[in-house]
Amino acid sequence: MDLDRVLRTYGDLAVRVGLNLQPGQRLLIIGPAVNGGVSLEAAPLVREIAASAYRAGASLVEAIWGDEALQLIRFTHAARDSFGQFSAWLPQALAAHVDAGHALISVYANSPDQLKDAPPQLIGDLQKAASTALRGFRDRVGRNQTNWTVVAAAGAGWAAKIFPGLPADQQLTRLWEAIARMCRLDGPQPIEAWERHLSQLAARRDILNAKRYTALKYQGPGTDLTIGLPLNHAWVSGRSATRGGVAFVPNLPTEEVFTMPHAARVDGVVRATKPLSYGGTLIEDFAFTFEGGRIVNATAGQGETVLRQLIATDAGAARLGEIALVPHGSPVAQSGVLFYNTLFDENAASHIAIGSAYKFTMVDGETMEDEAFEQAGGNRSAVHVDLMIGSQELDVDGVLASGGVEPLMRQGEWAQPV
Amino acid sequence: MDLDRVLRTYGDLAVRVGLNLQPGQRLLIIGPAVNGGVSLEAAPLVREIAASAYRAGASLVEAIWGDEALQLIRFTHAARDSFGQFSAWLPQALAAHVDAGHALISVYANSPDQLKDAPPQLIGDLQKAASTALRGFRDRVGRNQTNWTVVAAAGAGWAAKIFPGLPADQQLTRLWEAIARMCRLDGPQPIEAWERHLSQLAARRDILNAKRYTALKYQGPGTDLTIGLPLNHAWVSGRSATRGGVAFVPNLPTEEVFTMPHAARVDGVVRATKPLSYGGTLIEDFAFTFEGGRIVNATAGQGETVLRQLIATDAGAARLGEIALVPHGSPVAQSGVLFYNTLFDENAASHIAIGSAYKFTMVDGETMEDEAFEQAGGNRSAVHVDLMIGSQELDVDGVLASGGVEPLMRQGEWAQPV
Repeated sequence: MDLDRVLRTYGDLAVRVGLNLQPGQRLLIIGPAVNGGVSLEAAPLVREIAASAYRAGASLVEAIWGDEALQLIRFTHAARDSFGQFSAWLPQALAAHVDAGHALISVYANSPDQLKDAPPQLIGDLQKAASTALRGFRDRVGRNQTNWTVVAAAGAGWAAKIFPGLPADQQLTRLWEAIARMCRLDGPQPIEAWERHLSQLAARRDILNAKRYTALKYQGPGTDLTIGLPLNHAWVSGRSATRGGVAFVPNLPTEEVFTMPHAARVDGVVRATKPLSYGGTLIEDFAFTFEGGRIVNATAGQGETVLRQLIATDAGAARLGEIALVPHGSPVAQSGVLFYNTLFDENAASHIAIGSAYKFTMVDGETMEDEAFEQAGGNRSAVHVDLMIGSQELDVDGVLASGGVEPLMRQGEWAQPV
Repeated sequence: MDLDRVLRTYGDLAVRVGLNLQPGQRLLIIGPAVNGGVSLEAAPLVREIAASAYRAGASLVEAIWGDEALQLIRFTHAARDSFGQFSAWLPQALAAHVDAGHALISVYANSPDQLKDAPPQLIGDLQKAASTALRGFRDRVGRNQTNWTVVAAAGAGWAAKIFPGLPADQQLTRLWEAIARMCRLDGPQPIEAWERHLSQLAARRDILNAKRYTALKYQGPGTDLTIGLPLNHAWVSGRSATRGGVAFVPNLPTEEVFTMPHAARVDGVVRATKPLSYGGTLIEDFAFTFEGGRIVNATAGQGETVLRQLIATDAGAARLGEIALVPHGSPVAQSGVLFYNTLFDENAASHIAIGSAYKFTMVDGETMEDEAFEQAGGNRSAVHVDLMIGSQELDVDGVLASGGVEPLMRQGEWAQPV
């Protein structure tokens, strides 16, 4: 692998396809909120993104960095009652940047379980403080107020978690190879490959939108779930558009077609098929029971305390805000690699998200007031966390307005070709 | 050298002596404005500072990082007319942090001449934008609104500039050794050593304050300068105090005793004795002519364009805001090392600063309105840049109110012991 070429290509892809950066826009490069910014380890990719952005006409590129080690130091040394503290400057900086119409890239490079030895209560305090402080910013992003995208960079801790059997000096390279393959960076013409793939996703999206399903039914091991869809739900795939009309791709890679569930019409049981890395801890072997849209029972083989805290963040954290369909034939699923990172794992399996719904997954949702959006079935919460439920044993049916039921996915694959 | 011990000791010194951090204070770790934050290379020291701050009761420690490489990428790729752009979030974050009474550490680790190949006009645009944007923040610091300190961390580019003759793999270690020695970290009881040293500086300060000199006269090679002192000037040494009464040490190391000149009463010529690293470029072999407090001529063997731009930043940038006396026997001078970094080089030689005067160098200055401060002789500007003029050939005399003249320094050393 030519790492320099991979970095340069991913940087260009993020700026040209991911953001579709417009000349004169500023670009802010950030990372996961719990980390305070983009990991220092991501510097090689951050620099390629910056160079590509300036070449595309960015007027200013800045990065807000975060250091995982500083986070660990906090958990080791800080007073136990101080984890609700979250300073105002980061949310203000992010909101002001979006309000000015500038572009935003989030780069993930973090260890999936860096906080595995930290007390769950403190992690909960930190997560809640971050979610609350960043709610206004996330709301802006959820309305596609500006062009934004999420990419990933290999980091040592993350690579060690995925490839524990490899010698330490090979783990990072191996993860970059995986990222390059998942992001179609290793072919001769990555940008053109992405245009083809995005067209295919758009075709699937158009088919789903034409169906106007009133609900989806999920059947699989440990899963028997019915998810109602709001009347005006909109299926969305890889490419989105800002209200100003700039087309952008929020996730690179992306393999999903997604929409919003009706927050009050989810019933049954569902079992996760992949672990979830949330706030530096891993939640594994977990399952939910839904009644009237609300989670009434949650269990986990590992990380149950953090999971329960997550669901208790606010009223909307116990309801769903997104459902996404991903075929088992996706490159991420076929790689067989468990990334412990939502950007990749959500593209290996159909999933649901607890927490806030994106307004752009409802027809004309971006211009709706919060109350109208909620009345139409859109969930509101300070959190939005994806949970993988797909596998090659999952069947999904679509329920038509007529009451008829038709197969949508069988054994994890689309029942019909595009 | 035990680098881990040096880092831990410097971190503790910065927090306990430099900041005198108060329990419950938050701490923000920053770097040079031109870089956007603390260099990624400084991470090992930043982490020790954070751990020490939490041990001292900090409620939250955050770092705003900056990456030299991103700055270079900007100069390589960004549109030539974009260098006046400076986003608002950094100045707002800093001002809000200080207004809330939280503590601030600036860590310098930067290459002294990272921008040596960049067009001076663009450097000037960037510097002016940064100075203007950060003026409100610097004004708050200048009034000691909170406890703050400046320390340094070895970086590869900086080390290579100081020790070009050493193999690359030894340069960084050699710079850490020099920092450890200059900062008295290599003895058995560094904190106690600093208390003794600060007491000696305070004794010298008290002597100077008792004198009530009306002016100082400087004589040396290329230097024949008279600097008037305002009636209520106050000499200050290592330790300062916030208006709330927290004693702190703004620079580690510090060897100087300093006060403000009268902005309108500086006349004669002065020649710099060390190069100045300013905004990523080196200015060398430079000299000024003053008339009525204003620089009426400036020349430099290298970097003259950047120097002239600096002086032209605003009206106050062509006048003096600080004068500092440092004996040639100081550890930094005796080391014979030219650090290309003001934090160290200003402690090797007597110096003057063009630009803003610190209000705390006038009796009751912190509570004075800007106009009254200026009328009393205090200079105001968006910049504050130290210029080294001391050497073992410099003589300084003090002019008494009676008109009498007495020797203050001879051949770079104090004429009288403490």
